[in-house]
Amino acid sequence: MTRTRFHEGLEELKQKLLEMAGMAEQAVDRTIEAYRKRDAGLCQQVLEAEPAINRVEREIDELALDLLAMQQPMAVDLRFILAVIKINADLERVGDQAVNIAERVMNMSSYPAADLPVDIPRMASTTAGMVKRALEAFIQGDADLARAVLEMDDIVDRMNRDAFVALSKLMKSSPEQSGPALDALLIARNLERVADHATNIAEDVIFWVRGADVRHGSGAETPPEQE
Amino acid sequence: MTRTRFHEGLEELKQKLLEMAGMAEQAVDRTIEAYRKRDAGLCQQVLEAEPAINRVEREIDELALDLLAMQQPMAVDLRFILAVIKINADLERVGDQAVNIAERVMNMSSYPAADLPVDIPRMASTTAGMVKRALEAFIQGDADLARAVLEMDDIVDRMNRDAFVALSKLMKSSPEQSGPALDALLIARNLERVADHATNIAEDVIFWVRGADVRHGSGAETPPEQE
Repeated sequence: MTRTRFHEGLEELKQKLLEMAGMAEQAVDRTIEAYRKRDAGLCQQVLEAEPAINRVEREIDELALDLLAMQQPMAVDLRFILAVIKINADLERVGDQAVNIAERVMNMSSYPAADLPVDIPRMASTTAGMVKRALEAFIQGDADLARAVLEMDDIVDRMNRDAFVALSKLMKSSPEQSGPALDALLIARNLERVADHATNIAEDVIFWVRGADVRHGSGAETPPEQE
Repeated sequence: MTRTRFHEGLEELKQKLLEMAGMAEQAVDRTIEAYRKRDAGLCQQVLEAEPAINRVEREIDELALDLLAMQQPMAVDLRFILAVIKINADLERVGDQAVNIAERVMNMSSYPAADLPVDIPRMASTTAGMVKRALEAFIQGDADLARAVLEMDDIVDRMNRDAFVALSKLMKSSPEQSGPALDALLIARNLERVADHATNIAEDVIFWVRGADVRHGSGAETPPEQE
């Protein structure tokens, strides 16, 4: 296998990961539209789309494995392939979280509409924005953009904590609303989990681009490799 | 680098992963002891141990990267290294779940002891058993044992669903208990998530041992490779 074919393989890997990302993003976007519209049909679409996400996840892993087996990659290519493997796993879990949210939205639709002390659509759009930016950072190999995603994580964490406090208080004071309040509390937690995956993706981009491991805020950074 | 040194590196990788596994298991065990004893001090220990788990995760990834870069691994070694990378990520998330549980247990300890319709210790011991078996399957390269773990996942899923139904009902009927009931509901969900990670680990063991990808129940299996 020639170097050129290897690089074609890397490009294919990147394209497949972007396809996977598009599917995961669509799943999250659909659950939020479903939440706004109380639309169980949209939730059903999210559940039905999950097997396809899982299938593409496998295809990406197999392609990555083939590339690793075919020739000894240079350090930067190796790091890229490993970043793809990890991002792939995070995207699959974003899809799982979308399924969890869809299930809660379906359950919520069975209650009368409630006026809850939480702005789920705002939290969702912040979270979806993190995922989009993390993937943009991946496409452009932009470590600075990836770092901006890490900072957004604190905002979503705070939104989730605020939602927890407000909704658990409501459950206690208005038990007749405890059903939808619990669903909303769990949706907020699932969104916070999606934000964590976006953070992981951003960290993997930085690991690839900078050759530094910034996970868990180690901060230890080595200069970019010369190749 | 000689083939022998490469194999020494693989052995070191395996040992480090087992160290990581021990830390993750200890974190889960401590949270459950903390739940039984209502012991916030034990929860604190879990929070304090997390940075060490994150550090070992990074060390394992770096060692795996070094091994991939050093020589062109044979297919079976390559699959082993990839399995380690994925198991490593799952163990780190088991550690995260332990932290989540510890936070809920600390919160629960602030309420008077409540008699809740959920057997968290039983669910926890089933879940911890799944993690232990998945790792045993890894140590022994035993795909059958790994398959047994996949079957246990349904049991934990059912326990989680039952806990959800019983506890959300209690929140509605006895709002004064909604605080501890919500904590217990979230702990049950976190345990279910730990069980998911054990399932992922078992799937990675099967992927490595059998050369088949059984994730997401694809069922497509190829015979073991001849090398």
